[in-house]
Amino acid sequence: MEGHDLASLNDQRDTLLAQKTVIITALADTDAPETGVTPFIHYNGEMFIYPSRLSSHVRALLARGSGQFLLVEDEALAQNIWARKRLKFNASFVEISRDMPDFAILCDAFALAHGPTMNLIRDFSDFHMLKLLPHSGVLVTGFAKAFAVSGPDFRITEHLRSG
Amino acid sequence: MEGHDLASLNDQRDTLLAQKTVIITALADTDAPETGVTPFIHYNGEMFIYPSRLSSHVRALLARGSGQFLLVEDEALAQNIWARKRLKFNASFVEISRDMPDFAILCDAFALAHGPTMNLIRDFSDFHMLKLLPHSGVLVTGFAKAFAVSGPDFRITEHLRSG
Repeated sequence: MEGHDLASLNDQRDTLLAQKTVIITALADTDAPETGVTPFIHYNGEMFIYPSRLSSHVRALLARGSGQFLLVEDEALAQNIWARKRLKFNASFVEISRDMPDFAILCDAFALAHGPTMNLIRDFSDFHMLKLLPHSGVLVTGFAKAFAVSGPDFRITEHLRSG
Repeated sequence: MEGHDLASLNDQRDTLLAQKTVIITALADTDAPETGVTPFIHYNGEMFIYPSRLSSHVRALLARGSGQFLLVEDEALAQNIWARKRLKFNASFVEISRDMPDFAILCDAFALAHGPTMNLIRDFSDFHMLKLLPHSGVLVTGFAKAFAVSGPDFRITEHLRSG
């Protein structure tokens, strides 16, 4: 990472990780990709989502056991619309089932982060509490500014030629 | 579509279509989905994108001949973060090659819509001008408010039980 301002890159990554929602893509059993968006939280340094299997992309994610995730800055915030800052990563997950002690704690954390809707949906059994296990990804901060990231803390490891 | 305010739904769809960028997902040759984001324009009632094949999702799109596209309202604009308004659609495409008369016209339209970056990248041969051919999709305007859309004009056809 010589020649790059790692502190600035870390800040740009952390700004993306401070967003509220993440785009999910997973492969349906028709072998077509399915895309959607869902809120997430960080809890004890890990990322959690609580999406509904009524959506096709969530059924695909649950069936495949992994998917691709995208955090992207709002269009209105982009300095250059051709290079919206974004963090893309591949992740598997583990489910926190409703009978586990952590389930209620995580529901409370979602309500705190994202408001009272959580209290409406926490008992809906079509929703699944999933802890994401990110393994690899790409941080794009501008034109020709793509960087490999690695592991659950999205450590920036390498400048890439393409994203 | 009885019992729904079609004019309001059309307005919400058109607001999404007035955005500047679209999220692309396509299936890579590794059978993993690849996701990215790119500006688009409307020209003569059709949608065009001009992405670079240096990105893995664009290579996947070009190789497969089709992908899934997502227009989603900015996080900051969402009334409820659990139900960001969005339009998801599947589309194939035709390429407008650099030697076709429309190519220069479309580059000018991109520059007009999205600023001078287009003038830097119009001669870069890794970028491809693609006309999207949307066939089917889903408009989500809130909780339990998912609607099927059909064809290149995203005509709203049916209230769905899930998105």
